[in-house]
Amino acid sequence: MSVAVPRGFQAAGVAAGIKGGGVLDVALLAAEPGTVGAAVFTVNSAAAAPVLLSRRHIAATDQVRAVVLNSGSANAATGEVGHLAAASTANHVAATLGCNAEQVLVCSTGTIGSELPVPLMLAGVDHAAAELTSGADASTRAATAIMTTDTVPKQTAVASDEGWSIGAMAKGAGMIRPDMATMLAVVTTDAVLDGETAQAMLRSAVDVSFHELNVDGCASTNDTVILLASGASDIAPSTDEFGKALATACRTLAVAIAKDAEGASKMVLLRVSGANDAKEARHYGRVIADSALVRSAFYGGDPNWGRIVGALGTVAPPSVMSSVDIDFCGVAVARGGVGVPHDEDALVDTLTAGDFSLHVMVGEGPGEAQILTTDLTPDYVRFNGERS
Amino acid sequence: MSVAVPRGFQAAGVAAGIKGGGVLDVALLAAEPGTVGAAVFTVNSAAAAPVLLSRRHIAATDQVRAVVLNSGSANAATGEVGHLAAASTANHVAATLGCNAEQVLVCSTGTIGSELPVPLMLAGVDHAAAELTSGADASTRAATAIMTTDTVPKQTAVASDEGWSIGAMAKGAGMIRPDMATMLAVVTTDAVLDGETAQAMLRSAVDVSFHELNVDGCASTNDTVILLASGASDIAPSTDEFGKALATACRTLAVAIAKDAEGASKMVLLRVSGANDAKEARHYGRVIADSALVRSAFYGGDPNWGRIVGALGTVAPPSVMSSVDIDFCGVAVARGGVGVPHDEDALVDTLTAGDFSLHVMVGEGPGEAQILTTDLTPDYVRFNGERS
Repeated sequence: MSVAVPRGFQAAGVAAGIKGGGVLDVALLAAEPGTVGAAVFTVNSAAAAPVLLSRRHIAATDQVRAVVLNSGSANAATGEVGHLAAASTANHVAATLGCNAEQVLVCSTGTIGSELPVPLMLAGVDHAAAELTSGADASTRAATAIMTTDTVPKQTAVASDEGWSIGAMAKGAGMIRPDMATMLAVVTTDAVLDGETAQAMLRSAVDVSFHELNVDGCASTNDTVILLASGASDIAPSTDEFGKALATACRTLAVAIAKDAEGASKMVLLRVSGANDAKEARHYGRVIADSALVRSAFYGGDPNWGRIVGALGTVAPPSVMSSVDIDFCGVAVARGGVGVPHDEDALVDTLTAGDFSLHVMVGEGPGEAQILTTDLTPDYVRFNGERS
Repeated sequence: MSVAVPRGFQAAGVAAGIKGGGVLDVALLAAEPGTVGAAVFTVNSAAAAPVLLSRRHIAATDQVRAVVLNSGSANAATGEVGHLAAASTANHVAATLGCNAEQVLVCSTGTIGSELPVPLMLAGVDHAAAELTSGADASTRAATAIMTTDTVPKQTAVASDEGWSIGAMAKGAGMIRPDMATMLAVVTTDAVLDGETAQAMLRSAVDVSFHELNVDGCASTNDTVILLASGASDIAPSTDEFGKALATACRTLAVAIAKDAEGASKMVLLRVSGANDAKEARHYGRVIADSALVRSAFYGGDPNWGRIVGALGTVAPPSVMSSVDIDFCGVAVARGGVGVPHDEDALVDTLTAGDFSLHVMVGEGPGEAQILTTDLTPDYVRFNGERS
């Protein structure tokens, strides 16, 4: 179940030769006329050519007829050549499917700085267009074609009692800042949505999934999340139910991405509470989750609250440092900024066994944030030390 | 040549049992009456008890008679017990040497959250006081006693034609943010300085060494740099020459610390130029040097300028990203935010061979910063994943 399962969508994934070796590397998603689109893009100033193009297109019209995605080249930091490559791709898809170029969105992922091989890309589009079909198999081929260092394709689906359904796919295998590997996600639905509602609902869903669960889901040059609503079910969903289903789909994909993080051996759910507001909580959480020392301790299963204090102290005021409480998996290890007795051996066993939770309480305020992070492992460094 | 070589100073390093196994872990540096002190402390809000005490003492008087330092416990995040432990140590040193407690500075380094074993510390002070002597051997024992994960003691000395000399020791083995391992340094001189001049010159020297050459030399809970001037040479130095010698000593120690960074295989000298001001240049440099992806590429000898663009783009405006130039070891790899042809194989050979330089030019402004960073290695993660 994925993007080409809701009514009104067809997908294909083909091997265009961008990566070589017969590996799937171009995905095409076609939507029937009348489909409404919404998108959230990276906030990185070095946004890639396809991001700039898609941002312009979705601003010009909320009518989307196709999304074309490739792996093997991010088409980022490629200058004028890159802009032409993205535009050529969109124009070719439009000509092939018989729509306006502005109704085509383009996503690329791969190495920053490598130019998109346009002839291969256009031939790939032709090939994909000929294979467009609905259903689970086509969805999976599309989800596979956008993989980079992902070890598994990432898909999810939600079927509503109201009669509409959602399908979604994503790629990403290291979305924790400062990793900044690209995250792409496309969500389709046959529910009836207007453009404004689609954009608002997508923004909310991203905030509680890719943004909220992760330290920085939108910091790479290419990060893009797209929602397409074909309306083919003829059912206008209840806002509440659709919002929940969309958030669930996005959160499922975010967790799948975190679980597949490059070289990570475990996930850590970090919760910061008691801050003055959510922004402050997220800032504190980011500083903790960014610390190589803290994340190395995660790897070792070491409940090293001192490193958390050290990291937090670089940004929080002394009043926070003298009151901070820290729990690993519900076990209090620090109260008021000072260590408290606990069964260290039992806790190490827990943290060594696999995924765990960490709660940092910084005060009495209402501000909270959740961050889904991972440990830093020798494999991560080896992996990212290889030339790409 | 080190801290107990300039006239007016005696040092000792003893095994007090804080670390166990007969390892040196308490250092005492005694200065003759009339010695002027200056200090720069961490800006971390979770500053350790010895930092808070030393900050109070140096604010109360610029007359310093002793510095006592221990490894094996940072006495940080230890609450009221920690404050009492630091005060007891200072009081005991004062009683032993016959001075006021306010004339004693205390430095601790080791695991955050572990309490200082006061009886062992006080017995160590007694032992060290009995062994106080001037000269190179005593200096080296003191420099050895403050080591934590350091693999070598770090000392340097400068002798001036004017007749005064400088001796200095430091510890630190991973001072690159976000590592935040503690950096301690003590510089002695027999030159004649007043307190105000000593503080101003120390601040300047730290800015061009521990602060300027490193991403964040003062972010740990315990970081402290101390300058003591005994005046025993009866020579008032020329400000210019003394400033240069002090900066040289501090820079030598900063480089020694970077070279000894936990698990690092090479040093990278990152220069950011063309920013609007030095603060902006340092901010950009920090973001680049903080990126685990960038530092993993350093490890692999990969001139991966795309990751630098990706990291910089999270904070710099689009105007910077479309004009950024990047050189590795003087070889242009990107111009105007776009890759340019270069001999990749030769460059990889250079970056693989050892330490190298990286220059990121972000515009036409006067703002510059240098950051001495290291690669991120599998060893680093393994090392810091072990429970301490």
